[in-house]
Amino acid sequence: MEKQLQSLSAEIESASGKTDADMHMTNLRILDVYTETVYPGAMVIKNGKIVAINPTWTVQAKQVFDGRGMFAVPGFMDAHVHIETTLLTPEALASVIVPWGTTTMFVDAMEIANVLGIKGLRALLRNTANLPFRTFMQVPSRVPTAPGLETTGGVLGVEEVDDLLDDETAVSLGELDPSKVLEIKEEYLKKILSAKKRNKICNGHAIGLDWDQLNVYATAGLSDDHESVEYQELFERLRLGLRALIREGSTERNVDKLIAGVIKHHLPTEDLLFCTDDKHVNDIAGEGHISYNIQKAIDLGMDPVKAIKIATINAARHFRIDHQLGALSPGKFADIVLLKDLNRIRPEYVFKGGVPVATNGKLNREIAGDYPNFLKSTLTLSPDFCPFDFSVPAEGNKVKVKVINLYPDQIINFATEEWLDVCDGVIAANVDDDVLKLSVVERYGKNGQVGSAFVRGFKLMSGALASSVSHDHHNIVIVGTNDPDMYIAARELEKCQGGFVAVENGVVKGILPLPIGGLMSCDPANKVMQEIDALNRVVRGMGSELPSPFMTLSFVSLPTVPELGLTDQGLINVKTHRIVPLVVGYE
Amino acid sequence: MEKQLQSLSAEIESASGKTDADMHMTNLRILDVYTETVYPGAMVIKNGKIVAINPTWTVQAKQVFDGRGMFAVPGFMDAHVHIETTLLTPEALASVIVPWGTTTMFVDAMEIANVLGIKGLRALLRNTANLPFRTFMQVPSRVPTAPGLETTGGVLGVEEVDDLLDDETAVSLGELDPSKVLEIKEEYLKKILSAKKRNKICNGHAIGLDWDQLNVYATAGLSDDHESVEYQELFERLRLGLRALIREGSTERNVDKLIAGVIKHHLPTEDLLFCTDDKHVNDIAGEGHISYNIQKAIDLGMDPVKAIKIATINAARHFRIDHQLGALSPGKFADIVLLKDLNRIRPEYVFKGGVPVATNGKLNREIAGDYPNFLKSTLTLSPDFCPFDFSVPAEGNKVKVKVINLYPDQIINFATEEWLDVCDGVIAANVDDDVLKLSVVERYGKNGQVGSAFVRGFKLMSGALASSVSHDHHNIVIVGTNDPDMYIAARELEKCQGGFVAVENGVVKGILPLPIGGLMSCDPANKVMQEIDALNRVVRGMGSELPSPFMTLSFVSLPTVPELGLTDQGLINVKTHRIVPLVVGYE
Repeated sequence: MEKQLQSLSAEIESASGKTDADMHMTNLRILDVYTETVYPGAMVIKNGKIVAINPTWTVQAKQVFDGRGMFAVPGFMDAHVHIETTLLTPEALASVIVPWGTTTMFVDAMEIANVLGIKGLRALLRNTANLPFRTFMQVPSRVPTAPGLETTGGVLGVEEVDDLLDDETAVSLGELDPSKVLEIKEEYLKKILSAKKRNKICNGHAIGLDWDQLNVYATAGLSDDHESVEYQELFERLRLGLRALIREGSTERNVDKLIAGVIKHHLPTEDLLFCTDDKHVNDIAGEGHISYNIQKAIDLGMDPVKAIKIATINAARHFRIDHQLGALSPGKFADIVLLKDLNRIRPEYVFKGGVPVATNGKLNREIAGDYPNFLKSTLTLSPDFCPFDFSVPAEGNKVKVKVINLYPDQIINFATEEWLDVCDGVIAANVDDDVLKLSVVERYGKNGQVGSAFVRGFKLMSGALASSVSHDHHNIVIVGTNDPDMYIAARELEKCQGGFVAVENGVVKGILPLPIGGLMSCDPANKVMQEIDALNRVVRGMGSELPSPFMTLSFVSLPTVPELGLTDQGLINVKTHRIVPLVVGYE
Repeated sequence: MEKQLQSLSAEIESASGKTDADMHMTNLRILDVYTETVYPGAMVIKNGKIVAINPTWTVQAKQVFDGRGMFAVPGFMDAHVHIETTLLTPEALASVIVPWGTTTMFVDAMEIANVLGIKGLRALLRNTANLPFRTFMQVPSRVPTAPGLETTGGVLGVEEVDDLLDDETAVSLGELDPSKVLEIKEEYLKKILSAKKRNKICNGHAIGLDWDQLNVYATAGLSDDHESVEYQELFERLRLGLRALIREGSTERNVDKLIAGVIKHHLPTEDLLFCTDDKHVNDIAGEGHISYNIQKAIDLGMDPVKAIKIATINAARHFRIDHQLGALSPGKFADIVLLKDLNRIRPEYVFKGGVPVATNGKLNREIAGDYPNFLKSTLTLSPDFCPFDFSVPAEGNKVKVKVINLYPDQIINFATEEWLDVCDGVIAANVDDDVLKLSVVERYGKNGQVGSAFVRGFKLMSGALASSVSHDHHNIVIVGTNDPDMYIAARELEKCQGGFVAVENGVVKGILPLPIGGLMSCDPANKVMQEIDALNRVVRGMGSELPSPFMTLSFVSLPTVPELGLTDQGLINVKTHRIVPLVVGYE
């Protein structure tokens, strides 16, 4: 309290002109999100906060920044993002998102929580003071995602969630699986009540819910959704009191349809927010981050002031931090984006807390993450693990098995039943017909289980691919044409404590180590992007035509997305939440 | 937690149609504040909450309410009110406000806190479950208002405020005196930090602040203001990030000018709220409550949907309770107003928590308050108190004294200096010239101090008036033509433990007992209104022409409103916050 009191006193003194300010930003055109106007002005900054706008007294400041008539708008906010899926540390990620004007990320770090629980989550998000953007925590509600059907490294039960919700940066309970509410699972209702008790909100994930289900979801206390694809979905969510996050990720690209609908139907925009959810680093670098959502909205005909509000004050209000952020007014952090043209979201300068952090598309200062060793040591295979663990024994000469079939560019899949040969008592993949083996190897040193099934769509002609990013349990998932290469791939990942690897004929053809939780690289963004490109080229050489084979691999086994999932415990029927037999027929 | 879990489970079951609902409200035209549209619909209610809107399944409910095509809108919210100045208990007040559609009051009960501190405050606001409207607490920030210059019954220091902010119904730190911030008083900054720590907002009171001062005020963390009179004031407050409460009280009538400005300048309305602050019960009964603010806005040309949003969702969002209230959507309390015409705010029915509480302008069930005895025993005069305590000794034959002069219909006053006779060593009032004696008698049994001065404007020809409502310290304030009548008036209030009294020639001519904290009656609203009318007639018979003489009396001594104040400790120069001598010149 004493320190905060001193800071507040100093800010008030500076706001009154009694003491020198840290910075005087002059000659700006300031976007006022409250009156929806732009006006000429100057801002006085102290302790990283705006303390006065256009004072009538003469400002004395340690530093003067001449805005040269540029537009000053609040820093952009990503209302829902899984930071780990960028494969970068927050520090490395900064170099791609901050130059695009993103200064606040509302992070659901459920991936690291699945690997390392509460300790990992806090370790990943601890470094925010040092970062050129701010992070707020959406406390993951579903770790594990498929309880009883998968082995994870960490578990966030009712107590852990309650504990995390106490954190100062925790703004919400993270996106809740609708089935947990629709089926009235006590554990999840308790988590909702924990958030409500603290007057914190609950994020939704209302994928595909119909009107009746949305009624239930809203009744349970969920207050937003980021899964709308069609305008009608967005409209229904708003009508039932759920704020709508309009997502533009790498695969889910929803801005066009949704914003076009909003404009066409003259819908008020105060309940809209923007998010990326999952956006690959190369896509961000190429086209932009939340800036891209804003730009698209403007290009579709939305008033830039409204579009920028969606990316700023609307998000701050939703998460109840609008006393700190989301607008350029006294008492708020000086997170500021300067634009030459309000219709062209290409930041000239980005400030965090009154400090310039990016200029002309480049971060001013690259920073390295410093993560504790326990975050980099999360992969332990069973001492007994051997190539035979991939064998799926069967009797007879042929068996009919369930096969997971990929859809292009989607994380859902569909099930078929196909005949496979049985050789020497084990079921054989049919490489010629693109029916490959898919296995999930438990990697937390807990039970050494291996679940195996078959998948169509990877089109590998030889070798194996393995990934320790494997939603949401993040065991090792491997697709392969033969068991020995699959085994070598898993062992390679053990050596580097996680990553992506391609093995062919016993030789490692390419590898991207992801040692932080087996999810994230320690390297800068550019290096990671180059390594992914190189790795993808290797995979194409092995026959696959997928644009992002490792991204596909990391989602293919997800036990909560229809129709089939695969975990270390076996093949999952997503609809019934049950382990089902792989073999469904014998000759 | 267990009980809440059961409730939530029951609501979800009912939302899914698995169990019977409590009520099915059909045949409505529902106002959707999110999309700003009206649509035909039905609502399913369980545990006092809306759990489904227009479900596709067949609703089974214990009760069906046919809305006969009426408009269903959310219950209205008063964003800032001092409940005690109505002179009624919350129960009695309900009979006048609820029929007008007010279902939520954000209450700054600083008056009872000045009398009885934290204990009195909690006792007054404890009965909300039983009330036909909801109360949320704005934790009073300034008890006492003039520390060091007045004796009060209760004090809310940093610790008490911190404690109160923990209460579930506490939504904010109550309106803060700007001088405390502008002068950087540590106690008040600590109170602000207490609120911020809990992510609760701080209410402002930016009366007369200029742009530079508003910068400071906003920097300190204040987030609203209810004192705008001119459109330019409102605009400046919005620009600096303060939400603007548009007040329509008994004397402060700001809707006309402000809403006209908002409409003229096409200002967005999402940062506007409505409040009454101080509105007399007879005014409410006659013209309406928040309904009147809405009606005026509509009559001025505002879209009724926008006007109703200002009175509902906007307030709920500001106080961060929009997950509970402010809209008709699942998960929200079923606080509903039914209107025949969206342009005419005359509620046909008012529901609180799905229960009809008012019909056609009448409360369905009058309720009596049940308040503990300590609330009714707050007035203790010194055993030594006697008529000579009112004497103001002076030497010579004439002295020049400072005189407090009333403005009509305003709580501010202005100072003059006038010559008064000294008779038998004490200064005499000049009744013929309307210079009457004004005294404040400490009434908490603490020190028996009496402060005296002179006032012009009451025009009493004889007798004395006394009130235990005396802002904000609520000692006994007495205006009189002679000391014996003033003494009798004080003693009469002691007998009934507070109220308003008129005494003439030693005889009590009229009295309104206000035994709850010396501030509020135990009687129903109608009876209190009749008694005030009767008392006002008595006072007119004594020569006064003031429309509300006791209201004027209760504000005349206020030590924080320019130019002069009077407390038990003496005459106050409001600008310098100092006790000043009454006598400024001798003959």
